[in-house]
Amino acid sequence: METIADATPGALFRSFIAYQLTAALRAAIELDVFTAIGAGAGTAAELARRSGAAERGVRILADYLVVQGFLTKTDGRYGLAPIAASFLDRTSPVCLAPAIGFLASPLLLDTFAVLTASVRSGRSAAGERAFEPDHPMWVEFARAMAPIAGMTAEMLAIRLDAGGGGHGKVLDIAAGHGLFGIALARHDPGARIVALDWPAVLAVAAENARAAGVAHRFSTPPGSALEVEFGDGYDTVLLTNFLHHFDPAGCEKILRKVHRALAPGGRAVTVEFVPDESRVAPPEAAGFALVMLATTPAGDAYTFAEFGRLFRYAGFTRSELHQLEPSPQQLIVSRK
Amino acid sequence: METIADATPGALFRSFIAYQLTAALRAAIELDVFTAIGAGAGTAAELARRSGAAERGVRILADYLVVQGFLTKTDGRYGLAPIAASFLDRTSPVCLAPAIGFLASPLLLDTFAVLTASVRSGRSAAGERAFEPDHPMWVEFARAMAPIAGMTAEMLAIRLDAGGGGHGKVLDIAAGHGLFGIALARHDPGARIVALDWPAVLAVAAENARAAGVAHRFSTPPGSALEVEFGDGYDTVLLTNFLHHFDPAGCEKILRKVHRALAPGGRAVTVEFVPDESRVAPPEAAGFALVMLATTPAGDAYTFAEFGRLFRYAGFTRSELHQLEPSPQQLIVSRK
Repeated sequence: METIADATPGALFRSFIAYQLTAALRAAIELDVFTAIGAGAGTAAELARRSGAAERGVRILADYLVVQGFLTKTDGRYGLAPIAASFLDRTSPVCLAPAIGFLASPLLLDTFAVLTASVRSGRSAAGERAFEPDHPMWVEFARAMAPIAGMTAEMLAIRLDAGGGGHGKVLDIAAGHGLFGIALARHDPGARIVALDWPAVLAVAAENARAAGVAHRFSTPPGSALEVEFGDGYDTVLLTNFLHHFDPAGCEKILRKVHRALAPGGRAVTVEFVPDESRVAPPEAAGFALVMLATTPAGDAYTFAEFGRLFRYAGFTRSELHQLEPSPQQLIVSRK
Repeated sequence: METIADATPGALFRSFIAYQLTAALRAAIELDVFTAIGAGAGTAAELARRSGAAERGVRILADYLVVQGFLTKTDGRYGLAPIAASFLDRTSPVCLAPAIGFLASPLLLDTFAVLTASVRSGRSAAGERAFEPDHPMWVEFARAMAPIAGMTAEMLAIRLDAGGGGHGKVLDIAAGHGLFGIALARHDPGARIVALDWPAVLAVAAENARAAGVAHRFSTPPGSALEVEFGDGYDTVLLTNFLHHFDPAGCEKILRKVHRALAPGGRAVTVEFVPDESRVAPPEAAGFALVMLATTPAGDAYTFAEFGRLFRYAGFTRSELHQLEPSPQQLIVSRK
């Protein structure tokens, strides 16, 4: 994350108006400006034509994106900077543009609009809408975050040596897009995935499983992870981006259920933002705690020591921490 | 402005959630966290006590601000990074914290929430509320931006060699906080300032003039700069952060009135964000055009060539461009 090495009024000013960068990227993505430039629209006039927008509008937006390093400008013609060519042009195989639909959704922006009140009370001042069953936010999440999650899921499958087999019966709790279980199933032909989530979200996961050709090993019994029993005899339980929503007592309750669901020798596989003991590094993992303050009653970005304790209390014998680079997330494998 | 040198998913992710930095800084300023840390509150518990906030809330907020480079953290104790010690601790003589009240006001955030529509139509999709007479935003502007404007005004007075005298009768159009005229009056004991703005705003300017000890040479006839006649016989007319709100035709109309108001040999003194001919540098000046797209029907960050033409059409003989560093703004002096 950018640190403010230059203690200047200009650096402060830029941080005060950082929200404008989010808005500009969202506008450019919604109008598909990056794809248009990638396809050769180099002038404001050409861009305006292709995006169905006013020339004044795209000229000012594109100049701003040059200033911010997302576009280039040479002799009045715009081009894609490397970050935009890789991740913002929709024809790129690693386009991550849809993620802004979740990461900067109106709902999330609203929670940050009342951040002062959340800091004051120590819990989200925006209510607990995210925990309502079938909140449409989680369908948006499942769709928007799929490209980013897909990358993390690949790193997970490699890290778990999924190609070596042996994942057996896999429970994916709060599966969302389902991509973590799907990655295991793709790498391990013996893995059978049971994905748990609200029905509207599971429809997205099932769609992704079909697209990945693993639908016959991917079942989706509906039910909130907070309410239904998990069953038993699982070799692997996936807990991806789930525990951060809860306080330690809530996590422990879930982990006891996970422990019961695992067969002897089974393992819980947790993907999370795990800051180190300082809680201020690595930047993305540490910074994520603020999102939990803004959006949950008592969630957090837990350290490995905290997760280790929680898993131990729930009956697990040992936990190991792994990195998932280039993903900013971490992996914890805990043995029953 | 930060450029995205590292074309990584992490860099993109940080840009998508840039709005969270604005929100965190606003929360910390509203709870006066920086001043509390400057006064010795080093732990989350101490900070919570001093800011009347929950310990969980300030712990997560402070860790986030460490990640972002505004705070330090050593052995669990927070400290101020240089940028915060200089500009965010309210006991600092150059504290700029109030500026966030304008730069990230709910009104401005609202305009950026509909930026896509503004790009599409080429004009602010948020309406033209800012141009309603006596919009309270301009009183907030006059108060919040005073510390930053005060610094720019000092650079202006030095650049104009105000200490050498000769500014005579000065008209400050859309004076706002009045600080540009006040700086001239402070440096030039012969200068008499006539400040023009809406009455509620002028009350702030008059207060600032009294505080600076120049009230006897500072008059405030009420009236919108867009409606009243300017009078005549002025040696200097100040146009600070005003012309960017208008399209070229609107600017020219104003500049003709300015020309008429000036005595022979008088000069118009314009302080603006003036990008170079590429329109993508310097970063703050170039980036400012986006604010005009988001908030005005047809305003812009005009280049020096464009300003030169506008002043020439309005009858001025020549214009000169000067920097006002460390302010990110530029100065144009145009002779009648």
